[in-house]
Amino acid sequence: MIIVKAGGSKGITIDAVCQDISALVGRGERVLFVHGASHETNLLSTALGKPPRFVTSISGVESRYTDRETLEIFCMAYAGKMNKLFVERLQQLGVNAVGLSGVDGRSMEGERKVAIKVIENGKRKVLRDDFTGRVEQINTGLLTLLLEHGYMPVLCPPAISYESEIINVDGDRAAAVLAAAFKAETLIILSNVPGLLRDVHDASSLIRRIDKAHLPSYMDFAQGRMKHKMMGVAEALAQGVGTVILGDARVEQPIQQALQGQGTVIR
Amino acid sequence: MIIVKAGGSKGITIDAVCQDISALVGRGERVLFVHGASHETNLLSTALGKPPRFVTSISGVESRYTDRETLEIFCMAYAGKMNKLFVERLQQLGVNAVGLSGVDGRSMEGERKVAIKVIENGKRKVLRDDFTGRVEQINTGLLTLLLEHGYMPVLCPPAISYESEIINVDGDRAAAVLAAAFKAETLIILSNVPGLLRDVHDASSLIRRIDKAHLPSYMDFAQGRMKHKMMGVAEALAQGVGTVILGDARVEQPIQQALQGQGTVIR
Repeated sequence: MIIVKAGGSKGITIDAVCQDISALVGRGERVLFVHGASHETNLLSTALGKPPRFVTSISGVESRYTDRETLEIFCMAYAGKMNKLFVERLQQLGVNAVGLSGVDGRSMEGERKVAIKVIENGKRKVLRDDFTGRVEQINTGLLTLLLEHGYMPVLCPPAISYESEIINVDGDRAAAVLAAAFKAETLIILSNVPGLLRDVHDASSLIRRIDKAHLPSYMDFAQGRMKHKMMGVAEALAQGVGTVILGDARVEQPIQQALQGQGTVIR
Repeated sequence: MIIVKAGGSKGITIDAVCQDISALVGRGERVLFVHGASHETNLLSTALGKPPRFVTSISGVESRYTDRETLEIFCMAYAGKMNKLFVERLQQLGVNAVGLSGVDGRSMEGERKVAIKVIENGKRKVLRDDFTGRVEQINTGLLTLLLEHGYMPVLCPPAISYESEIINVDGDRAAAVLAAAFKAETLIILSNVPGLLRDVHDASSLIRRIDKAHLPSYMDFAQGRMKHKMMGVAEALAQGVGTVILGDARVEQPIQQALQGQGTVIR
């Protein structure tokens, strides 16, 4: 099985990703697709007069501050707009896509962080009204049921907490847990960069191959959103996924290029 | 099987509807649930600076003018916000709900009206950039698959056209087609009125029982959104649904009250 994650950043085209998924499915590959919608969420939040607010945890990981109002905006951008646009395009290409958030059938479940410790303007704070968490369990039964009957699940955040609250989760790490749950041969994480860069300002500094035994020494190259991706990479490999590829979503045939070794290949 | 449709108008509470669905499912009933989100769509459209525009067809039926931008707002309100709020609440009540728009797995399919003839400000116009249509086919295979494996589908517009475009469809008539496809014993349509009224301004003028043989003579009592509901009622009964109940969504235990004969019962 191949797990494809397409980021939700600016510059990612629905069409190119869907064309490639259609080609993969057409040659009999089992594919699960996960997408993001962070850019759409930012746009929608801003348009609705509630501009996005990002917080940095004391361990240095950035996440979207997600109160209940933001959570509803998040649902609209992810499960409402982007998910249905991906499903529509896949349907046009002959793939019988079924869009699911992690809430649906508890497809992606995890723990809500009831109190997150962040640093804001140099000060430590504890946020208690935040609906953020992390995917820990996949309902492989539901996804397998759909796959076995000719449907392709198109997954996206949010997920559901053990207490059945909607939670904002990181899509890259969700895709990693998904890949691990299915013991996928390959996890492809597409975003609007060429892969992991030695110098975040220099696209030519792409790191092309990483031996998973040496992964820890590469973690410090990750900046911003790439940190989540690299944590996902480490988790997926540790749990039996064969290869993880950090690929460029902005090129023609982004998935096929990644499978041919473009981007950062970690195995 | 019981099909429950809860409208998306102002004043409808998610909790009461979900409590009742949970009770029905708990006693072994097979239930399919369809919801609307018209009020949410109006609020979101307005907040995004694109206030809703309603058009009246030359046959006198009102619908939301849905250009592609409105369609995306529609997806956000229906499949994004309201669908996930219903699924979340049902999950909290122990019902393993799976939210699906009609686009997902082509669960609700129909024809897009490529040119709709409307009357606006007294003038006839043809709208060609409108993504509106009508549900004609249900993917009973997908819905049965989910039901047989312990999942409860929570359906909502939009649907998908035969050309795989997302289309805005009327939820009441979609529920009627769904009830017909499953030959449901009962279709319950809940909205923010007590049922069909002889005088739309007088809640005490409720019509309590209608023999389906006499349905045509009651069609003229329907005003505004109730017209869609009455067309749905007629379609469902004509296609073998046993009983249709137009119930009040705003009361405690709205579904159980409808099943006990409150509202307008047509059989």
